[in-house]
Amino acid sequence: MKRNTKELILEKGSEIVRLKGFHHTGIQEILNTAGVPKGSFYFYFKSKEDFGLQLIDHYSNFFLGNADVFIKDENFSYLNRLRRFFDFFLNYFETTNYKGGCTIGNLAQELGDINVRFRVKLNEIFEKMKNKVETFLHHAQNENEISKDIDISIASDFIINSWEGALIRSKVAKSSEPLRIFDKLIFEHYLKK
Amino acid sequence: MKRNTKELILEKGSEIVRLKGFHHTGIQEILNTAGVPKGSFYFYFKSKEDFGLQLIDHYSNFFLGNADVFIKDENFSYLNRLRRFFDFFLNYFETTNYKGGCTIGNLAQELGDINVRFRVKLNEIFEKMKNKVETFLHHAQNENEISKDIDISIASDFIINSWEGALIRSKVAKSSEPLRIFDKLIFEHYLKK
Repeated sequence: MKRNTKELILEKGSEIVRLKGFHHTGIQEILNTAGVPKGSFYFYFKSKEDFGLQLIDHYSNFFLGNADVFIKDENFSYLNRLRRFFDFFLNYFETTNYKGGCTIGNLAQELGDINVRFRVKLNEIFEKMKNKVETFLHHAQNENEISKDIDISIASDFIINSWEGALIRSKVAKSSEPLRIFDKLIFEHYLKK
Repeated sequence: MKRNTKELILEKGSEIVRLKGFHHTGIQEILNTAGVPKGSFYFYFKSKEDFGLQLIDHYSNFFLGNADVFIKDENFSYLNRLRRFFDFFLNYFETTNYKGGCTIGNLAQELGDINVRFRVKLNEIFEKMKNKVETFLHHAQNENEISKDIDISIASDFIINSWEGALIRSKVAKSSEPLRIFDKLIFEHYLKK
């Protein structure tokens, strides 16, 4: 029960912060949405900052856990598993009118320069996201789907960063075009043998 | 004189908003930094929102004006002029410890979902940035520096979006690596004949 309440606060909080930003979100608003009394918040989180830092783990677990589902899908080649992973998010953003973007990218933008704890943690999460993409590419390269000439560490970094940029653009364009261009150029040109 | 005061508010305001975000920046803080009395702010700007919208023009004039300087530099080929344009920003971010990022990307991230006026204006500016990159590529393609097979409209969109993503990553990594990877993959792989 306690774990559920905490998860509920993180889940509802994540949705609001992703839409409105960290500073612009009040704790009371999160608690109202979650239907949880104020005392509960401070039972689970030492401060708003502590909540924000745990929010990063919450969201990154979602991202990384999802990647693990796709990477195990033996119906597709490793390169197509990676493409399907990004397509999953593309479809998600289409159904939500490209709202919110990526919590990690958003918080990096908002807090990267003004809070060192957030900056260090977000940097670690970006590394994990990059490493996850690299795992797909490692298998794809082993199976000769992508050229041995591609430095998969650099490629994975570029893929994660370009995806974050495409998300920002989709948010203001309210269009899937930037995400589709990302998909096309990464999978049909850059990584294509 | 009046124009100078307005420019001064926009310039100082731009620096602070780029670092701290729009919501997190107070008008008083901008006025203190600019050394301007509060009455001046409301003489030039109807509201904080109006200030924010004018800030977007201020920053985009800087970006687009800079591009025009590089595009006219006859010492280099058109592709190298574009590369030098991005290198200029890379060097700038190196000297400022990768702080702030791009005002347009930041505001898109922060306000794209919660203020339709900002969203529409930021989308227009992204289009202008994209069109500017496309002008470089148009000349480069005419001069046979890049393949005729490259769709320069799609390429320009991808370049702008990937640059925005690389800036976010540099902000939390406090490293030029993401910007250098962008430079390498765009100019030494993607656009290379």
